[in-house]
Amino acid sequence: MTDTTEAPVVGMVGAGQLARMTAQAAIGLGVGFRVLAGSADDSAAQVTAGTRLGDYRVLADLRDFAAGCDVLTLDHEHVPGEHLAALERAGVPVRPSAAALGFTQDKLAMRERLAGLGIDCPRFAPVSGIADVEEFAAGTWPVVLKAFSGGYDGKGVWVCASAAEARTVLAHGVGLIAEEYVAFERELAVLAARSPHRQGAVYPVVETVQRDGICREVIAPAPGLPPGRAARAAELALRIASELGVTGLLAVEMFETPRGLLVNELAMRPHNCGHWTIEGARTSQFEQHLRAVLDLPLGSPALAAPVSVMANVLGGDDADVYDRYIHVMAADPAVKVHMYGKPVRPGRKIGHVTVTGDPSHRDPAELADRARRAASYLRWGKEDGV
Amino acid sequence: MTDTTEAPVVGMVGAGQLARMTAQAAIGLGVGFRVLAGSADDSAAQVTAGTRLGDYRVLADLRDFAAGCDVLTLDHEHVPGEHLAALERAGVPVRPSAAALGFTQDKLAMRERLAGLGIDCPRFAPVSGIADVEEFAAGTWPVVLKAFSGGYDGKGVWVCASAAEARTVLAHGVGLIAEEYVAFERELAVLAARSPHRQGAVYPVVETVQRDGICREVIAPAPGLPPGRAARAAELALRIASELGVTGLLAVEMFETPRGLLVNELAMRPHNCGHWTIEGARTSQFEQHLRAVLDLPLGSPALAAPVSVMANVLGGDDADVYDRYIHVMAADPAVKVHMYGKPVRPGRKIGHVTVTGDPSHRDPAELADRARRAASYLRWGKEDGV
Repeated sequence: MTDTTEAPVVGMVGAGQLARMTAQAAIGLGVGFRVLAGSADDSAAQVTAGTRLGDYRVLADLRDFAAGCDVLTLDHEHVPGEHLAALERAGVPVRPSAAALGFTQDKLAMRERLAGLGIDCPRFAPVSGIADVEEFAAGTWPVVLKAFSGGYDGKGVWVCASAAEARTVLAHGVGLIAEEYVAFERELAVLAARSPHRQGAVYPVVETVQRDGICREVIAPAPGLPPGRAARAAELALRIASELGVTGLLAVEMFETPRGLLVNELAMRPHNCGHWTIEGARTSQFEQHLRAVLDLPLGSPALAAPVSVMANVLGGDDADVYDRYIHVMAADPAVKVHMYGKPVRPGRKIGHVTVTGDPSHRDPAELADRARRAASYLRWGKEDGV
Repeated sequence: MTDTTEAPVVGMVGAGQLARMTAQAAIGLGVGFRVLAGSADDSAAQVTAGTRLGDYRVLADLRDFAAGCDVLTLDHEHVPGEHLAALERAGVPVRPSAAALGFTQDKLAMRERLAGLGIDCPRFAPVSGIADVEEFAAGTWPVVLKAFSGGYDGKGVWVCASAAEARTVLAHGVGLIAEEYVAFERELAVLAARSPHRQGAVYPVVETVQRDGICREVIAPAPGLPPGRAARAAELALRIASELGVTGLLAVEMFETPRGLLVNELAMRPHNCGHWTIEGARTSQFEQHLRAVLDLPLGSPALAAPVSVMANVLGGDDADVYDRYIHVMAADPAVKVHMYGKPVRPGRKIGHVTVTGDPSHRDPAELADRARRAASYLRWGKEDGV
């Protein structure tokens, strides 16, 4: 008699909501799961037995954490690449690898690599002063400035309507690239998974709706997307995953424009654009990430419902979110509420809701209305329109 | 700034697989969740931060556990009723109540109560010696003997083909009732939820397939069940939940017979007959149980897939179940594997798999074949036919 818990242990650095939802998937799969948390109050740390406290910026903490795990993965991009490389040299399987993750930690390297692969992106250039920005703008504003990595005040992207605005951003002294401001029709995202065995799987392309730089809604699949364009987006994600050597999930955010699809951002972890997969796909992105980093065969990314809409719940002024469950659940017994146990701060993502359709209720607009209503009510007790 | 974790805390006595899957649901709902575990190795205790160690047979341990919870519930029926009643007198909300749970702890009381309500059950009588059993049999064997509560050697039900076999059972000195051996067409089960607010919700009726007294497969909804009979089964479950004052889930196991539906067993907790709801219904039974005991509005019990089949994974002779994931997942990327982290013992439930259909693949026999194949492979590495 031995234990099924001889299954391997996945260690995730970071304990936010992505780690929290990955913990749920790990319970189902029956694999071990640990998080490296900065605090026992972190979203994932609250709920999982596998919490270890430590600082992801300190190599010794990472080493200690990795010692109890069979494979290391990440719920955010902020772990120093040199630490991950050191762990790899010590024989720790890190997925995604330090080299792959580097492309999400250095936007200039990412842009140059994608350009080298011939993948369409917004026009870009590194800039070191206002002269560079003005030359890049060539009289056409706005111009987007992006920090290579990090940023300040929690922001890394600025849309500058004028040289004066660009000067303000430059004054902060962070490394920047300039990008053209793309007049896109809408934003799309594709989530792919890739395993060390090089198996790939890709979820249907979704539409993401952002307001004030924050993702508010995701509609899966993207309504009215021509099949050819959907296929190109899927191929693009699989190709990037392969060329960059990604293991685990890769989220590719794109602009849909009259001149085609332009790649905007990459992330190598479960992503907000894939939360709908918990109910809306055969395999949730969290299970898929675990399967990929464990080098298990990937799960089916097929739709489990003809349409799903996810809406993020943002913090409002009133913190007693639980008090509002009764209204949301009574109004719509089929809405799925996911809360992250995070302190409520205005504008912060504290949860999400998902509404799925069925063969006789598959109107994305109707589903989006239900999701938006529920998310808005949880935020504030009334529809806030923001 | 306050914390969304001011949400209430549900305490579940027991830390088996039902508590483990309830923990997953609690993470999603963003409510606090604790388990009272006999050991840190228990199925649920392995995975949740909210583990407290203690003995469910000791009132002081139950009191200490309840002190940190807003509502108490159970993952098994073995908590002494007098302890639960003592907690209730001390003001602890216990759901289901000691009075309701009593009907699952005393099969004679349950049978008498259901008979009093005019609900069809197998013919029964309390028996205290072989003369009683022979009088009950009136020359027709087999006769079923059931322990009022508990049993011995982990068994509580015996099908006796003769007076000699009945004597062997009687010799163990446990309180028994005799029941007619029902030549049923098949076994059905209905899962209902009821909240303190008296809201009721009922899942579609399922077919359960037992072998050697162990549930092997569940098909949801029960194939070919006439709508009138399905409606009667659903009404029956809601009526029993109401008459017995159940809060939380009630599982009603029934025999389908030429003379109609006969109620066989009751359980007041998440139940093996409802594991399919994780993927196959809008609200999983685990989320539903939490919503019911928290007196939140109940979730939609509607089907999320036209057909789902769940198959239990039983322990085989080879404990290295994880080693076989690769085959099961490669063979059928859409099968959902749920493992419980339990020590592998031959014949013990150590996990389950679920396969869901879609509008173009809704043949229960095909889905059952896929589920059976995956469960069988996880058990033993080959199809074992048992």
